[in-house]
Amino acid sequence: MLFLKVRVLDIDLENLVLINSEDLKSSQYFPQDRVVVEFKGKEVIGILHSSTTLINRGEIGLPQKVVKELGVKEGDIVTIKHAEKPKSLPYIRKKMDGNKLKKEEIFEIIDEMVDGKLTNIEISAFVTSLYINGMDMDEIEAMTIRMAETGEMVNWEGHIFDVHSIGGVPGNKYALLVVPIVASAGLKIPKTSSRAITSAAGTADVVEVLTRVDLTIEEIKRVVKETNGCMVWGGALDLAPADDITINVERPLGIDPEPLLLSSVMAKKLAMGVNKLLIDIPTGYGAKVKSIKEASSLARKFIELSDRLRIVTECAITYGGQPIGRAIGPALEAKEALLALEDYTQAPTSLVEKSISLAGILLEMGGVAPTGEGKELAEDLLARGKAHDKFMEIIVAQGGKEVSSDEIEVGKYKADIHSPIDGYVTRISNAGITKIAKEAGAPNDKKAGIYLNVKVGNKVEKGDVLYTIYSDSEERLKSAIKLARILYPIKVEGMLLQKISRF
Amino acid sequence: MLFLKVRVLDIDLENLVLINSEDLKSSQYFPQDRVVVEFKGKEVIGILHSSTTLINRGEIGLPQKVVKELGVKEGDIVTIKHAEKPKSLPYIRKKMDGNKLKKEEIFEIIDEMVDGKLTNIEISAFVTSLYINGMDMDEIEAMTIRMAETGEMVNWEGHIFDVHSIGGVPGNKYALLVVPIVASAGLKIPKTSSRAITSAAGTADVVEVLTRVDLTIEEIKRVVKETNGCMVWGGALDLAPADDITINVERPLGIDPEPLLLSSVMAKKLAMGVNKLLIDIPTGYGAKVKSIKEASSLARKFIELSDRLRIVTECAITYGGQPIGRAIGPALEAKEALLALEDYTQAPTSLVEKSISLAGILLEMGGVAPTGEGKELAEDLLARGKAHDKFMEIIVAQGGKEVSSDEIEVGKYKADIHSPIDGYVTRISNAGITKIAKEAGAPNDKKAGIYLNVKVGNKVEKGDVLYTIYSDSEERLKSAIKLARILYPIKVEGMLLQKISRF
Repeated sequence: MLFLKVRVLDIDLENLVLINSEDLKSSQYFPQDRVVVEFKGKEVIGILHSSTTLINRGEIGLPQKVVKELGVKEGDIVTIKHAEKPKSLPYIRKKMDGNKLKKEEIFEIIDEMVDGKLTNIEISAFVTSLYINGMDMDEIEAMTIRMAETGEMVNWEGHIFDVHSIGGVPGNKYALLVVPIVASAGLKIPKTSSRAITSAAGTADVVEVLTRVDLTIEEIKRVVKETNGCMVWGGALDLAPADDITINVERPLGIDPEPLLLSSVMAKKLAMGVNKLLIDIPTGYGAKVKSIKEASSLARKFIELSDRLRIVTECAITYGGQPIGRAIGPALEAKEALLALEDYTQAPTSLVEKSISLAGILLEMGGVAPTGEGKELAEDLLARGKAHDKFMEIIVAQGGKEVSSDEIEVGKYKADIHSPIDGYVTRISNAGITKIAKEAGAPNDKKAGIYLNVKVGNKVEKGDVLYTIYSDSEERLKSAIKLARILYPIKVEGMLLQKISRF
Repeated sequence: MLFLKVRVLDIDLENLVLINSEDLKSSQYFPQDRVVVEFKGKEVIGILHSSTTLINRGEIGLPQKVVKELGVKEGDIVTIKHAEKPKSLPYIRKKMDGNKLKKEEIFEIIDEMVDGKLTNIEISAFVTSLYINGMDMDEIEAMTIRMAETGEMVNWEGHIFDVHSIGGVPGNKYALLVVPIVASAGLKIPKTSSRAITSAAGTADVVEVLTRVDLTIEEIKRVVKETNGCMVWGGALDLAPADDITINVERPLGIDPEPLLLSSVMAKKLAMGVNKLLIDIPTGYGAKVKSIKEASSLARKFIELSDRLRIVTECAITYGGQPIGRAIGPALEAKEALLALEDYTQAPTSLVEKSISLAGILLEMGGVAPTGEGKELAEDLLARGKAHDKFMEIIVAQGGKEVSSDEIEVGKYKADIHSPIDGYVTRISNAGITKIAKEAGAPNDKKAGIYLNVKVGNKVEKGDVLYTIYSDSEERLKSAIKLARILYPIKVEGMLLQKISRF
């Protein structure tokens, strides 16, 4: 055990523990050892590193996060000792060996993950094991419950509705229509969304163009009490923190093991107190789910898991083979959604159609529309401006102010991309559009993105504008144009696709 | 792309790239993004972090290792840009999906690992996939070859012998006898060993008590030319660097997937230019390999892989159910090995028997002893002092000086552990002995360790000394005694093991 004097390090390395190289040499420790830092009974796990000049002998450098968790201040004396191997390691190995885990074993894994006792090496081994060996529904249920329990849990009275898309399709701003339609019909829908993870704009990024999204639970409760709905960033709340931890490992690996896909969605809903849920599964070429068969299988699993969690869930398989609507990027999407609320006859059909279909299902689930008539009611609420008024109420209640679609500013630099030939649009690549919008600066540059002038099936002539790229930076716009030339995300082909000659 | 001025950071975080928090905010980067740092055409991959005070705006903090690789100095201007996803990621996923990898795909994984382009998350996913899905011999062969090729390769003329233990049994200092026996018979045996990874003493730690072990390849060549043998630390050479990288992930997970076990051993031998190899597989309760069946299967795989690599390999399955000899810990082991060289009749039978058996096999492989007579020749070389003289030649050639076993100092603090009852020693726990020796300070404290007064099967009386713990620190000795009381690593039982009463 070593006794060391705290120095607060201003660095964002969460679990760094820095000691002097000489202290390290004369100790039983090695660089990258996992150690427990202790102060008055509180313990934090960190990874040991050394330096000869950044830290003096007898001192220990700790980043802000560790300082906060321990409740220490500069100059306090803390002790360090070797951390024991994580208790859940044998359970991770059990899953590597292809065995079913007991409830308590899954609880231990999730608990240690949330307590910072597992490193990326161990978490990656767990995620990889889940990808290869899977989990049955008992295991997924236990994982989902523990993921929810290890974070904030919100309580409500009565029915709480929500709609969630598993993602994968650009321009998917439907929630900005569905939430106010459903809320204007008297149902409670506290919608939490993520920011963009790999996309050009998450729902939270889009809503943030219009109002605050980093509300506390108390603020959410007030807004929902006043308006029946909200549209906030889930990341500002401490909902199912294990989910974010596993996502940080899944993302670089480019995998999304089904047990984690299911528990990730459902743990956040459970924690948020949702009991009536609609899950949107965009399906098609270039979306996360490629076929109706795959989508049905996933939907059945969501419903089985929901039943066990006492959440009434329906799933909607929607078309995800090209972007939803025409706008991609925070400000462009906010503008398009607002236009649809102001006058839906002026907005892209794909956006309106998807939104009123999903809202309709929720209205039927809530008993405010008879079976088969939900979509009609949803369209009516949209057409009569009820949804628009409700949207403005929510925006204002969250701290924003009323605004019209033509007031929303988009990137001051723009470039049109033209069709090189006459023909028909045969494909729009979701991945290509996303990459170009991100190159232009989205989502960090809220005004950056893409506006599509054409959708699949449209007839175009050589020189017609296919899409426009927007950016607030001239340099990034150039870079996006360059990428657009390489990716060629909108494919235009003549009706004659191939000519076979006589010889 | 960002242009930043280099500040050299004295910190052992190998791939840290530190920029000011304000620079981070106004850029397209996020903390923990993987970035390429470029200077005059040279590139290094790092992980981005930020600080508001440790680094000024417009500066970039780089640790010594990165500074050296880039060839930059304080004040130079470097650029950073987003690193692309590793090229080998799809191949890691292919293995996750249970598919056989092509040679080129394995080459890419190993290349990117060695180039620092894979993070622990990706390496852990690869190692876990190998643990679950395995590899066939084509894949293992390709992995072994590339692991060797991506590091230093040593060339020799003629036959080069080596003996390698896959480990797992404490006190395994046989190499200090085998190398001089074999070398004294005229065979070339440039033995590289590791330091302790999880044990109380690696062969390199033991030899280091007597002489230098961190020789360069040039120095090794000179020593072998002069003496036919050497006993050096492989870690000082750049042999099969991918092996160390995977071991750093295997160790915390507590796994050793067979494809990596095989390639790890054979890549280092291939790189070291060995073409006649004896592999020692200690087998028994408490060893790495538990049964003869398992040992035979592993031996056959080593031989098949060796054939493909044109290395003539034989395997010896040895008893590993209790420590080899009586001494555990660097100085204690060096003392015991030296005693065996001086007068083998005074040394523990298990050590002498194992050493002359293994040396005998090598002597037969080298054609200096007829089949079936190797062991006898080995014993003769040991008995006649030839091995002792050769050992001293090697020690001196490596930079040490001649020494006798009674000159070797062991820990100045010691404690005897007594038998609590009359009875027989029924078991000595390899893991327990190792833990206590490490608690006493081994291998960092070279004089710390354990000396066993008894071995399995010995009759003891209550109060007899079972073993003695040595340490150079009074505090650590106390801590080791405490652990000894908890672990109780030597089991003494009466001949009457259980009494069944009438009722």
